[in-house]
Formats: sequence, structure tokens, C-alpha cells
Amino acid sequence: MTFWKSFFNNKQYDQNNADNIKIRKENNILFIKNLNNNGRLIDIYLNINNHINLYDLEKLCDSVGWVKRPIKKVKIAIDNSFLITCLFYYQNNKKELIGFARATSDNSFNATIWDFVIHPEFQKQGLGKALMNQMIKELRYYDISTITLFADPQVIKFYKNLGFIIDPDGVKGMFWYPL
Amino acid sequence: MTFWKSFFNNKQYDQNNADNIKIRKENNILFIKNLNNNGRLIDIYLNINNHINLYDLEKLCDSVGWVKRPIKKVKIAIDNSFLITCLFYYQNNKKELIGFARATSDNSFNATIWDFVIHPEFQKQGLGKALMNQMIKELRYYDISTITLFADPQVIKFYKNLGFIIDPDGVKGMFWYPL
Repeated sequence: MTFWKSFFNNKQYDQNNADNIKIRKENNILFIKNLNNNGRLIDIYLNINNHINLYDLEKLCDSVGWVKRPIKKVKIAIDNSFLITCLFYYQNNKKELIGFARATSDNSFNATIWDFVIHPEFQKQGLGKALMNQMIKELRYYDISTITLFADPQVIKFYKNLGFIIDPDGVKGMFWYPL
Repeated sequence: MTFWKSFFNNKQYDQNNADNIKIRKENNILFIKNLNNNGRLIDIYLNINNHINLYDLEKLCDSVGWVKRPIKKVKIAIDNSFLITCLFYYQNNKKELIGFARATSDNSFNATIWDFVIHPEFQKQGLGKALMNQMIKELRYYDISTITLFADPQVIKFYKNLGFIIDPDGVKGMFWYPL
């Protein structure tokens, strides 16, 4: 069922080939699973590219109660993220966005995952795990070895189950905010 | 003495003006202080741009005992960092690199600081603090409100003094490494 181009392990990635990155990001759609959603079977897909409808994203973030952010700033953040991952299904030929995460990166050593969200109706069905595993796989494809994130207390266990470690060797996540 | 173009607070930053970012990064040099270095007074400067000699950087990282990294990967990381900050002085018309830090960012909401290093001969003289304060100032100029980093145990106090907070509201820094 999966029609992801699975060349993660058998193709040498050329670090200098920006076109390669672009083509890869444009074309990948992965079938995740089908779900029973209110008595109706729907197919859930994942894709990795920057073409996201910002209003769909706003609606998704709104569904989990996040503070609304200026759409202009969201656009800049999306444009300057290394990886954008979306979960969606089709309804009347329209994509319905139900999951999202993005990562900033130096494209080489480190990446940091931000804005991970799954629509409440679709939580606790393995979709977040599938999305996050795919992000890790994708970042590893680009030979990025340190994947970081900042986890709220209630999702620490979720990330632990994915293999994330808290404060390795006493390294602490620290934040600076404007007063 | 300072000839930094100090328009941090009195000029509205146009988020869409990529040229503005480029020009700003190309031209800024800031005088930090003069130091007595083995009986000789030297002027220490800071600049923010991507034109860094990678072998000078390697030498600097080597001086603090960091593991050597492939120069090709370092170049990609530099090219894809949002902010590169260098401390240096002039010796025989050549720049001597004595401090460095870089930040990845989505250019909008978040930034993460990596690879902060001060040459051992120049530590404990306020230079690291000056470098870090300038990075914060610069990121704030671009209206980035969440500045993050991962601190080794021995530098946590240093960052606390700069206003960084550990695990705010229980948010934990987490890492994923390949097995």
C-alpha cells in the first residue's frame, strides 16, 4: 500500500544537491493507514513539502487551542523551515489537514522540531507516532544526527517512546524570552 | 568607540526584505573592548556574517577540545544557519578568530543557538557574555521571541546570568540520536 519512494538506505545522499532536496520534498506522499472516523473509513496520508494552506494550518492549531499567530509570521516560519510534515485525508477532492509538524535545521548536524499538532478527533490512533517516525526517518536521510525538541510535560512520555532522551549527560534545554 | 549601526530599536524591520537581512549581515562590525593579552593591548571585534574561514573555525574548536567534524558538513551548517557571530582581533592585518556561535532559526518565531565557543586564552574576560548578548539583540531585531539552546552542565550558570531559563513550565529539552 505504501507508495513512498523508499530509498532511505540504499541511495547515497549528495549533500550539495539542493535540487535533490527540492524534488524529494515536492513529490513524496505516504499512505499511513485507514481509520474509522464516525462510521466512515478514511485513508490517511502524510506528505513532506512546503505547500501548505496557511488557513488550514490555523484551523488545525485552533482545534487544539493554540494562541492565534500572525499569518505573515507563520508564512515566514514555514518558508524557512527545513522540513514540513502534514497528515491529511481527502474529502470531496479537498485535502483535510489533521496533523502537522515542522523542523528547523542547519541541514547538516542538528534539527529542532516545532509546532507538532494532531487534530483532537484523530489523536490516540497512532498518527502522531507515524508522523514523528517519518520526520526522524527523513532527517536521518539527510544525515542529520542530532534531532531535538522541547516537550511539554504531558507529551514527554510520548517522545520517550519514540526514542527521545531528556537532558542527556545533564544537557539542559534553556529558553530566553523578551521581558 | 562602538561603530555598530545601532538601529535596533528605532527602525521597523520589514519581514519580507531579504536584502535588508543580507546587507545587515554583511556590514556590521562591533568594537567590543581592548584586552591585555600577554602584555600587549589588543582590540577585540565582533561581526555577524557568513564569511568565515572554516579552517580558522576548526582551529578554534580544536583549542577547546571539540571532536573534529568533516569540513564539508561544517560548511553546509554555516550556509544554513540564520546567524553567525564571530569574535576576533587583528594580527598583522589578519583576523584571528577567538570566539564563535551560530543560530538556526525559522526567521520568525524561534531560534536555537549552537556551537558557542571562546578560545581558552580569552575566556573569563566578558567576551562570551558580549557575544551572547549581541546574538540576543540581533535575533530580537528580527522579532524572534523564543531563543533556545542546549547547555552543558558547566555553562548553565553562565546562561542563567544572561536571562536564560531552564525547563520553563516543565518544558523539557529532548534529544534523539541514531543508535
